[in-house]
Amino acid sequence: MSDVQKKLPLEGLRVVELGHYIAAPFATRLLADLGAEVIKVEPPEGDPVRGWGSVKDGHPVWFSVHGRNKLSVTLDLKSEDGKAKLRALCERADALVENFRPGYLERLGLGPTALHAINPNLIIARVSGYGQDGPYRDKPAFGAIGEAMGGLRHLTANPGQTDYPPPRCGVSISDDLAGMYAAMALVSACWGVKAGNHAGRVIDVDLVTSVFSLMEGMLPEYGLFGSVRQPQGAAIKTAAPTNTYPCADGKWLCIAGNSDLIFRRLMAAIGRPELATDPRMANNNLRCANVEELDQAIADWTRTRTAKEAEDVLEAAEVPCSRLYDMKDCAEDPHFQARDIVMEVQDPLIGPILHPAAPFRFDGVSARDMVRWTGPEAGAHNDHVFKELLGKTS
Amino acid sequence: MSDVQKKLPLEGLRVVELGHYIAAPFATRLLADLGAEVIKVEPPEGDPVRGWGSVKDGHPVWFSVHGRNKLSVTLDLKSEDGKAKLRALCERADALVENFRPGYLERLGLGPTALHAINPNLIIARVSGYGQDGPYRDKPAFGAIGEAMGGLRHLTANPGQTDYPPPRCGVSISDDLAGMYAAMALVSACWGVKAGNHAGRVIDVDLVTSVFSLMEGMLPEYGLFGSVRQPQGAAIKTAAPTNTYPCADGKWLCIAGNSDLIFRRLMAAIGRPELATDPRMANNNLRCANVEELDQAIADWTRTRTAKEAEDVLEAAEVPCSRLYDMKDCAEDPHFQARDIVMEVQDPLIGPILHPAAPFRFDGVSARDMVRWTGPEAGAHNDHVFKELLGKTS
Repeated sequence: MSDVQKKLPLEGLRVVELGHYIAAPFATRLLADLGAEVIKVEPPEGDPVRGWGSVKDGHPVWFSVHGRNKLSVTLDLKSEDGKAKLRALCERADALVENFRPGYLERLGLGPTALHAINPNLIIARVSGYGQDGPYRDKPAFGAIGEAMGGLRHLTANPGQTDYPPPRCGVSISDDLAGMYAAMALVSACWGVKAGNHAGRVIDVDLVTSVFSLMEGMLPEYGLFGSVRQPQGAAIKTAAPTNTYPCADGKWLCIAGNSDLIFRRLMAAIGRPELATDPRMANNNLRCANVEELDQAIADWTRTRTAKEAEDVLEAAEVPCSRLYDMKDCAEDPHFQARDIVMEVQDPLIGPILHPAAPFRFDGVSARDMVRWTGPEAGAHNDHVFKELLGKTS
Repeated sequence: MSDVQKKLPLEGLRVVELGHYIAAPFATRLLADLGAEVIKVEPPEGDPVRGWGSVKDGHPVWFSVHGRNKLSVTLDLKSEDGKAKLRALCERADALVENFRPGYLERLGLGPTALHAINPNLIIARVSGYGQDGPYRDKPAFGAIGEAMGGLRHLTANPGQTDYPPPRCGVSISDDLAGMYAAMALVSACWGVKAGNHAGRVIDVDLVTSVFSLMEGMLPEYGLFGSVRQPQGAAIKTAAPTNTYPCADGKWLCIAGNSDLIFRRLMAAIGRPELATDPRMANNNLRCANVEELDQAIADWTRTRTAKEAEDVLEAAEVPCSRLYDMKDCAEDPHFQARDIVMEVQDPLIGPILHPAAPFRFDGVSARDMVRWTGPEAGAHNDHVFKELLGKTS
């Protein structure tokens, strides 16, 4: 393999981040993992996300990941000097990502019209709660509300359950999805500039539409038939047995046992071979009609074992399953370790620290090579960027 | 605005899809929305995902969305003719996306080495359950297991609840995330080819790592402190009051009322002004310590109103909230309609049908312009592609 294959794909792409909290910084984290030169512009006191979560020696540990592979500079965008420096950065950049409230950049005099006057090829990706127009544009945006309004929270529930509310996904899913779409659209538009399809332009990504994009066939089914998808809990209505079962240690085991061959192996493994040959269970449709009896039989067996014990028995029987991994399970799993999905890196501020791999790999570049450096302190690259980069004629 | 701004960013990018079910076809759906020429290669009987969900006049309605903006051709990849046509397509393409089991393409003689011999600049994006290497590589992949092993299902739960299993997200989240990462990495590598960073290369995306990428600071916190994030249900431990509350019609209302100002407005709106001035509730930290009392007070109020009634009162008081939208709520919402997040399009096979907007917008192109055509029948473009495209010398 030639040396050229060791380069990351986005080397040479310069992206300015005017981000805070999750959505825009996650977009640029992914672009930085892909090799882009990301210049994160923070207020003098730093991105407020630095105040979230645990701290080691005064340094926020999430930011080691969330800010990795980025350059950090600090600017006061309300000052003339800050605005001038931001304009100079945008003049030399391929793209900008921001997640202020709609209209805020314009009020600073740094909206798309002003920035395109400086750099006509600049791609400007804007992330907001509800989008850059429409009646909800100016409402305050919260990730939980994007999850609710986009249709996801209605589905993340056990049917008929009234004593607990439907739980959140457990992560900032709407911010994450919007950040991913912003990154994807930004790189696409940068490709479009190189291909001569267009000059600089403006991208509009919002949390609600990002969540709503995952609703599969539910919208056309509602429109054509009036059917409204209801929550299905841990089961899949059209596949049986496929569910999540309680174990002796209070943990849960997810089992996908609905193909005919796997079903027979599963029944043998739990000591119920008579169900494997029961004509009432002969195919998936019949099993769906008798799913309660099957789920009961499987749960009676899982309740007598820890999740790991049950998983080991079913693994040996080649029945697809997984206990619900917590962070310890992930960190200790041999596959996660063999593929460096979990890896120890050196953070100069924090010391040895576990990082997750980038979610994409390229031949010729290892997962470890893709973590070039850990999240820096706010303003760590002021000298490098303002003196060296802006000091040069572009 | 000049005409050039009306082009979609990926016009002129040709992508071959060897996909089935969700992950790879979702990746190419997004690329097609972005303007790429996607040639979906299906077996003669069609992608089995066409058999999922509701049907109108014999046509699967989800595929109208899932296959939109794509060309469909049918090939038997086990025949010499099929392989020859696939090679000819790859010779003329910029990229290929596939989600077969690892090793399958190689067994067909269509692995990366063979395809790069034909087209050295081809970007090959591979999506699988566990990745192209590592001890779990050959295990059967199921979306539910990616969700479990990546750490998400452990979190999507109400703490201490044992009578119901933690529910699924409700959508094929691990396939969706992997498809999004595959699309993002593919476009990045196409940019890298244009920038001269590298020639064709191979991208490896898997369901487990894709889910795991959303785990925020949980991995470094586990590594440094041994702390294992536990499910938090509908609440956020560090923000109060922020939760999801039961309403009189059996629906749920998500309220984000944890900032000091919003908290006071919320307490006034629910007729509990004395809590707004209670010194035990004076800031977020104090409110977190007294969260049960606050949640009780709010739920006592929401239980007396339908979700829509409660939402209207809180909206008027400028308290961020949203009922958990089901598909009817989404389809009828004025913001979804004003922004064409939901739009009626004409499907020549099905008739008028609702489509969701692409999750990214570009100035100069409307959401409606981005739906160029609806999902075609399997093989609908055989003549166009095999005669016109392959007939021409490349």
